[in-house]
Amino acid sequence: MTGVLTDFAGVGVHEAVQQRLEDFFADRISLASAYGDNYRLLWEAARSASSGGKMFRPALVAGVYRDLGGTDDDSALRIATAFELLHTAFLLHDDVIDRDLIRRGVPNLAGSFAADAAERGATDAAAATWGQASAILAGDLLIQAAQGFIARLDIAGPIRGELLDLFDGSIFVTAAGELADVSFSAGVRLPSLIDVMAMTEQKTASYSFEAPLKAGAILAGADQNTLTILGEFGRLVGVAFQLRDDQLGVFGDEGVTGKSVLNDLRNGKETPLIAHARSTSRWDEIAAVLGDPDLSETDGQVVRAVLEECGARTFVDGLIADHVSRAEALLAASTLPDTLSAHLRDVARHAVVRAA
Amino acid sequence: MTGVLTDFAGVGVHEAVQQRLEDFFADRISLASAYGDNYRLLWEAARSASSGGKMFRPALVAGVYRDLGGTDDDSALRIATAFELLHTAFLLHDDVIDRDLIRRGVPNLAGSFAADAAERGATDAAAATWGQASAILAGDLLIQAAQGFIARLDIAGPIRGELLDLFDGSIFVTAAGELADVSFSAGVRLPSLIDVMAMTEQKTASYSFEAPLKAGAILAGADQNTLTILGEFGRLVGVAFQLRDDQLGVFGDEGVTGKSVLNDLRNGKETPLIAHARSTSRWDEIAAVLGDPDLSETDGQVVRAVLEECGARTFVDGLIADHVSRAEALLAASTLPDTLSAHLRDVARHAVVRAA
Repeated sequence: MTGVLTDFAGVGVHEAVQQRLEDFFADRISLASAYGDNYRLLWEAARSASSGGKMFRPALVAGVYRDLGGTDDDSALRIATAFELLHTAFLLHDDVIDRDLIRRGVPNLAGSFAADAAERGATDAAAATWGQASAILAGDLLIQAAQGFIARLDIAGPIRGELLDLFDGSIFVTAAGELADVSFSAGVRLPSLIDVMAMTEQKTASYSFEAPLKAGAILAGADQNTLTILGEFGRLVGVAFQLRDDQLGVFGDEGVTGKSVLNDLRNGKETPLIAHARSTSRWDEIAAVLGDPDLSETDGQVVRAVLEECGARTFVDGLIADHVSRAEALLAASTLPDTLSAHLRDVARHAVVRAA
Repeated sequence: MTGVLTDFAGVGVHEAVQQRLEDFFADRISLASAYGDNYRLLWEAARSASSGGKMFRPALVAGVYRDLGGTDDDSALRIATAFELLHTAFLLHDDVIDRDLIRRGVPNLAGSFAADAAERGATDAAAATWGQASAILAGDLLIQAAQGFIARLDIAGPIRGELLDLFDGSIFVTAAGELADVSFSAGVRLPSLIDVMAMTEQKTASYSFEAPLKAGAILAGADQNTLTILGEFGRLVGVAFQLRDDQLGVFGDEGVTGKSVLNDLRNGKETPLIAHARSTSRWDEIAAVLGDPDLSETDGQVVRAVLEECGARTFVDGLIADHVSRAEALLAASTLPDTLSAHLRDVARHAVVRAA
């Protein structure tokens, strides 16, 4: 998942977290060198995988923390860094699970390691195994490192414990969503719209919105009401964000998003867009090509037209608007501090208007 | 990796850690039920994957801790549980990387999930993806849970920090060894005996011996000298243990080990046994069938005979004896407390004489 949430209170967080990531990877790369070229290259590739993102999760952590009057910037940035590393770890393993070799328009870790092995004379099968194994190990290392940033926080034990539980719970829910996602694509289970919406919330909203928002608040010592509202707000906006991401994956401008508008269709990705279309009389026209790895540009144009004509696109646009307006209503009805409310309204708006 | 190290000071630890694992999994399974049958089944399968092992890593942690006079049994058992979960996580991902669908004679997590999907009508490819994805996610969850047990220790901050660093370093080194192992099998690099010995130490000795021994000692407040000796002892015995495991994988009694003596040969597993054989004049006879997935019983007998005749088996037996005697000499030259020394001598002996 990618997204732009740039011009809010988190400006500056980007660079600070980038610096911490650089310090972390520089240390690991240096240590890895003692274990041979491959291991050093693995860590260098992990560093590349963690760069180039929009870093909106760190911005949410740090932004909420400051809005609530927090002053322990060091701890806030450690937590922010943890969420960014977790995100990279998920992307790495997500790509292995989906057998994707490309991310953000360039070969991903598995793709570049496989290509390198092939150049060095490995068979196709061996090269693929090498790429996959490398990406699995890199993801393992980053998940563990991410939690390590939380575990090492030099703060009061109970707050560290709450943050560990939050982080833990977020990984637990994300894995549930990922498993559901795979079960749909694997044909293990044909999903309803409700199933796909639940998967979206679990797979994206939890670790991308709900948990970062609550983490900033927990560190700031917020009360339970604030945490409850931030959690609900995060789930609503997170789902809207992912729905918008799904729309961009089919109807977006490739020049802006950097993502093919055919990939999701070729992979037969189950989204609310597809789940809705399945319930209409035009479904057969989509089913004929959905999930076909050779789906053509022309097929893509046909599917897009059908998705518009059958009402699926409008339906999902409505879902997005509905989620955002529920999030805004929640803010309006709450007694959150003004600075935080204003910030969150920005977050909700950006989740929807972004073009990439 | 499997092994028997039963009759030493750790008797009783097995049951205590088993209970903690049961509590942990009962909690997770209960929470997972809210996310659908598949997620509950995933956690149930993770519980199965973590049971049936010999649990010698927990026994090392708790044994050393008690030898050094430790009385905080609860913390010792938490750390012991962490190492057992980490072990299961490594096995899960190791099997994905090796594309193994069998472990301890029965379908592993990936194998049973794939079989289940196939029964429910998924294509072979989809079923395999489903199995792999499930095992990747289960491993992710257990790595993170393992570290969570360390992170939540209710002990002095600096000691918890030392334990986190130890755990972290152990995962770092194990991943390096795993990557090296894959690079050898993938033909990315043809390994020398030195390469394979280093891989063995990294992949097995670190997290299975060195780190559990040091963890018990750190919790007990041991001095730096004790940690240094335990570390070196753990590396030596850990390598001996893995070499013995490799021998059993080729020359063992299947009725006792429960492991096929053809698997390692069929997988073309790079071990010191194979690396030594490669340097002899009989190598071509082994190379002809090594790594052949259809390697027959008869081929296996021929390879075993050649491995004996070319001196590889004797060579590795010598390496094992050498590592154990170096470990024993280290103990003799050290000033470790008598109880600890006696315990460690038992550990070294069992690493070698075990038959399964």
